[in-house]
Amino acid sequence: NGHSACESGRRKSCWYEEEIEQDLRWCFALNSILHTGASQYQDIALLDTKPFGKALVIDGKLQSTEIDEFIYHESLVHPALLHHPNPKSIFIMGGGEGSTAREILRHKNIDKVIMCDIDEEVVNFCKSYLAVNKEAFCDSRLHLVINDARAELENRGDYFDVIIGDLADPIEGGPCYQLYTKSFYESIVKPRLSDGGIFVTQAGPAGVFSHTEVFSCIYNTLRQVFKYVVPYSAHIPSYADTWGWVMASDSPLTVDAEELDARIKHRINGENRYLDGKTFVSASILSKAVRKTLAKETQVYTEGTARFIYGHGSAHNSNHHP
Amino acid sequence: NGHSACESGRRKSCWYEEEIEQDLRWCFALNSILHTGASQYQDIALLDTKPFGKALVIDGKLQSTEIDEFIYHESLVHPALLHHPNPKSIFIMGGGEGSTAREILRHKNIDKVIMCDIDEEVVNFCKSYLAVNKEAFCDSRLHLVINDARAELENRGDYFDVIIGDLADPIEGGPCYQLYTKSFYESIVKPRLSDGGIFVTQAGPAGVFSHTEVFSCIYNTLRQVFKYVVPYSAHIPSYADTWGWVMASDSPLTVDAEELDARIKHRINGENRYLDGKTFVSASILSKAVRKTLAKETQVYTEGTARFIYGHGSAHNSNHHP
Amino acid sequence: NGHSACESGRRKSCWYEEEIEQDLRWCFALNSILHTGASQYQDIALLDTKPFGKALVIDGKLQSTEIDEFIYHESLVHPALLHHPNPKSIFIMGGGEGSTAREILRHKNIDKVIMCDIDEEVVNFCKSYLAVNKEAFCDSRLHLVINDARAELENRGDYFDVIIGDLADPIEGGPCYQLYTKSFYESIVKPRLSDGGIFVTQAGPAGVFSHTEVFSCIYNTLRQVFKYVVPYSAHIPSYADTWGWVMASDSPLTVDAEELDARIKHRINGENRYLDGKTFVSASILSKAVRKTLAKETQVYTEGTARFIYGHGSAHNSNHHP
Amino acid sequence: NGHSACESGRRKSCWYEEEIEQDLRWCFALNSILHTGASQYQDIALLDTKPFGKALVIDGKLQSTEIDEFIYHESLVHPALLHHPNPKSIFIMGGGEGSTAREILRHKNIDKVIMCDIDEEVVNFCKSYLAVNKEAFCDSRLHLVINDARAELENRGDYFDVIIGDLADPIEGGPCYQLYTKSFYESIVKPRLSDGGIFVTQAGPAGVFSHTEVFSCIYNTLRQVFKYVVPYSAHIPSYADTWGWVMASDSPLTVDAEELDARIKHRINGENRYLDGKTFVSASILSKAVRKTLAKETQVYTEGTARFIYGHGSAHNSNHHP
Repeated sequence: NGHSACESGRRKSCWYEEEIEQDLRWCFALNSILHTGASQYQDIALLDTKPFGKALVIDGKLQSTEIDEFIYHESLVHPALLHHPNPKSIFIMGGGEGSTAREILRHKNIDKVIMCDIDEEVVNFCKSYLAVNKEAFCDSRLHLVINDARAELENRGDYFDVIIGDLADPIEGGPCYQLYTKSFYESIVKPRLSDGGIFVTQAGPAGVFSHTEVFSCIYNTLRQVFKYVVPYSAHIPSYADTWGWVMASDSPLTVDAEELDARIKHRINGENRYLDGKTFVSASILSKAVRKTLAKETQVYTEGTARFIYGHGSAHNSNHHP
Repeated sequence: NGHSACESGRRKSCWYEEEIEQDLRWCFALNSILHTGASQYQDIALLDTKPFGKALVIDGKLQSTEIDEFIYHESLVHPALLHHPNPKSIFIMGGGEGSTAREILRHKNIDKVIMCDIDEEVVNFCKSYLAVNKEAFCDSRLHLVINDARAELENRGDYFDVIIGDLADPIEGGPCYQLYTKSFYESIVKPRLSDGGIFVTQAGPAGVFSHTEVFSCIYNTLRQVFKYVVPYSAHIPSYADTWGWVMASDSPLTVDAEELDARIKHRINGENRYLDGKTFVSASILSKAVRKTLAKETQVYTEGTARFIYGHGSAHNSNHHP
Repeated sequence: NGHSACESGRRKSCWYEEEIEQDLRWCFALNSILHTGASQYQDIALLDTKPFGKALVIDGKLQSTEIDEFIYHESLVHPALLHHPNPKSIFIMGGGEGSTAREILRHKNIDKVIMCDIDEEVVNFCKSYLAVNKEAFCDSRLHLVINDARAELENRGDYFDVIIGDLADPIEGGPCYQLYTKSFYESIVKPRLSDGGIFVTQAGPAGVFSHTEVFSCIYNTLRQVFKYVVPYSAHIPSYADTWGWVMASDSPLTVDAEELDARIKHRINGENRYLDGKTFVSASILSKAVRKTLAKETQVYTEGTARFIYGHGSAHNSNHHP
Repeated sequence: NGHSACESGRRKSCWYEEEIEQDLRWCFALNSILHTGASQYQDIALLDTKPFGKALVIDGKLQSTEIDEFIYHESLVHPALLHHPNPKSIFIMGGGEGSTAREILRHKNIDKVIMCDIDEEVVNFCKSYLAVNKEAFCDSRLHLVINDARAELENRGDYFDVIIGDLADPIEGGPCYQLYTKSFYESIVKPRLSDGGIFVTQAGPAGVFSHTEVFSCIYNTLRQVFKYVVPYSAHIPSYADTWGWVMASDSPLTVDAEELDARIKHRINGENRYLDGKTFVSASILSKAVRKTLAKETQVYTEGTARFIYGHGSAHNSNHHP
């Protein structure tokens, strides 16, 4: 019809609004509110947004969106698995959304994936509604455990080639703080890594300013515990920020871009949309201001200290409520 | 649980936003987007809002909400029917939502209601989704006609005790402008009123400032055509404004509060939630500024003139697209 | 130039946003933020808004706007002064904005106005920036007292023809709750009224739904203390609601529209923009739902009870912090 | 005082809102609106925002903010100047804000900077209000020309070591489209570069999705004209996106991180906040999806073709209106 794009009738009138910080908002036009639910721990919603497609929101915080979750999940999973010579068993702390498991299961050499999330309702919600992860949830190599990740790791006797932290950011008093401390890494995580094992964790915002919130401190805490620590980052459009991850091991983490590309080709089913050798090289060369903060960071997460963060991370893939 | 009311997770994150004017917005927190659709004329949506319950939105403009539509529809329908000594046949121009018919059909003496709306899809949408009007849509006294109200009135040979205008506001170039002109009232509406018949129309915003948009001019136009003209108004919370209606006839419109209450009691099934004798008396005594404008208004809607309005009215119960 | 009105560059980009309720927002496009300040009690700002002109905001709550504050202040002041046969001395509880004093001082027969506001900084802010009240603040009949209104009334020995409550709504634990209780009215206010004296107070939102928040209870509380009590209301566009006031006295409050108009003409300098005889008659005939609630209201504000309200009223003309 | 952080009175109530795209909004809490003005070409405002400090807004589009403009301007200026063996004369197309000149003038070997912006009022506005650029505007090496950049370059007889495009994005029908075409680069820009000269331009959004808007096409257009073309990008928090630049020359652009750091140390006064050798290396290794699009891009900007972009870029440092 003859309606022009700027007619008032065509203005977007339903919006999802997120307070990234108290004085900063990020708003997506909505097509619909697909599903809403609540667990004993948190509220959960699946929205259909115009700019980012389906969006998973937990306790009013965006977790991931259909169109760009591949950036987060490929960055979380593949660098650690590719730096390991032959990863077979993986433990995910959190990850109830299923996307982390999905990326792991694309690796042909994987035998066993433990996904340990505390919130059964959130897992069931994602299993029901996130079509993109349907296959992963049904994969026989995936073992879903509903438990506190700390308790689960403490009580298991087996070892893992890669342990992945897909948890909400460490906020003092927050649900996941205890899963980012030096003592947790030292006495719970490291003992469960097999020889040459690698630990990787999401590490909160890593932008030119936002990296001081938790990223530098997670990095510094891991540096106290592991010999080799590699921080890296990527811009995630739906988060309106650059995000960070930290990979750590007692074995050297030195695989160059060509070898990464070769391993991707041989080990991973299907094609990565975000990560390849050059992308990881770029992602792991941090910009000047971030490198400076990381080099000078002295704070370590212990049971008694924490830094605050406002926003995404506060419930990011939240799975743990001690 | 222990969550306090001001946790970020508890902030409302999905909103319906309406531009009442270009520089004035009105936003309702959303529970869900229940249904959306489109006709050849307009987009339509049924939202579930926190402050006002279910809300019908056409082309990005709020039409009515579950919790306060009774104010608009009781005010539109009952004064005219109660001022008529014995109304039996009613013609609604527009009214596809069904609420106007519902209020009319509560009058025991009604034999026949013609609802003439141009947009079949909107009527079907409301029939399907507005539970509160289900019964009215099934009432055997209701005759639904999908047609242009002007053409329908021109071609019919029967007469009506009350004709009701439940149309979008008169905007030059808008879909309903021609249904508010002096010539339309004189040569189409008046000839179809039976003896003692009454015409009533919604008449746009009638607030201390907003009454100059179309209310005063609708009033003045009707004053050129009918001997007795009664403007009245009521504040409608979901419109964030006071709304206006104008009732007109060639017979005197003088029924006092007590007699109105008596007629309500005898003629109407169920109890009115908004309108009674005193409410109408108050509604028909306009405030100083509005009375002054109405007294001095000289503009008349003819085929060649119009005033602009931004907002609600531009698609209010929009039914007519010549 | 050739830019059309809907070019993105012409969209309004600075906004004032008010949460009327937790799930309802009201947003005005901004021209500028004229002044901001803070007292020991509250934050204060003077904004220049597109839809309503200059707007006074205290603690994030709209107090009054340039284009429609006359509705609130004429409604608060004139009915009480006009119902009194010859008011000479007036006491304002609160009113630091100065507009209430300005309206009182338009009455030629006034000898003395005491304005008692607890917040000197707010008074000074308004004195400096609200040009429309400059003259009133300089009027020699006006006596400004910085004090708690309760303490001031208790300690004074003089009597007043009219006492006006221009205070924030009664919220349990709020700054003004104690200035709305039965015991305050009985033992502090009434003893300071001269023979035939009238008390009037703003009484919070009075819309079809919102009148249950505090309006009905203020009415019922005054009904316990005074023989004659008249509630009335008016729609205030910038509040996005109908507002209420209650007038109370031990002398009858019966002046008809004609006599009100005559008194306005003889007693008041300049012309009222909102209030005249008919406007007051309409304002004091409440609609059915409101009348019903008021008739059935049983709650009385005492030191131990209160009702909650969210929004405007919570800081409306806030002046009292016991 | 005892107010808690989540009291409604402490909510942010004044906001700057930008539509990044039609269905995506980005909102900053406001402290104040410092200055507003208008030129014959555009509206201009200087805001004081809570999250990003002072923000320059032209025609409703954010241009730069106090806290992160160094990312944009260091990225625009330093790579090209550092890759040149000894740059002495620079031509800026646009750049009226003054920050581009400021960064250039930090290079000790610079003799002459021509800043050619078409909008004198915008230049004067920035000269008056952007304290951070005061010194640059007064530097005797800076020559300000108010003219169309194309006309100015065409008519000058001198040559430049570096030409910098600090212009709004190429939108068909937009003010700057003609300054991004193959013929403009070939017949106007290249002839004015001295031997070994380098051209660099801002190149619009370069995010995982947004790089297809104009970045890939600017890259491909320059690839038709110059032998060596280096695209690079950086996340700019206030833009809520990753931004792109393209550097082009007929001499090789191969300076490694160590040499860049050495040149920074020797040539630039003061310390860079964003750019150093490693940062540039990372910035110039694009991620997989972006590299793929660039490699496959076939479109070239000619007088007859263009791509559309919505948002920042549409007025970014807009200076040219043919």
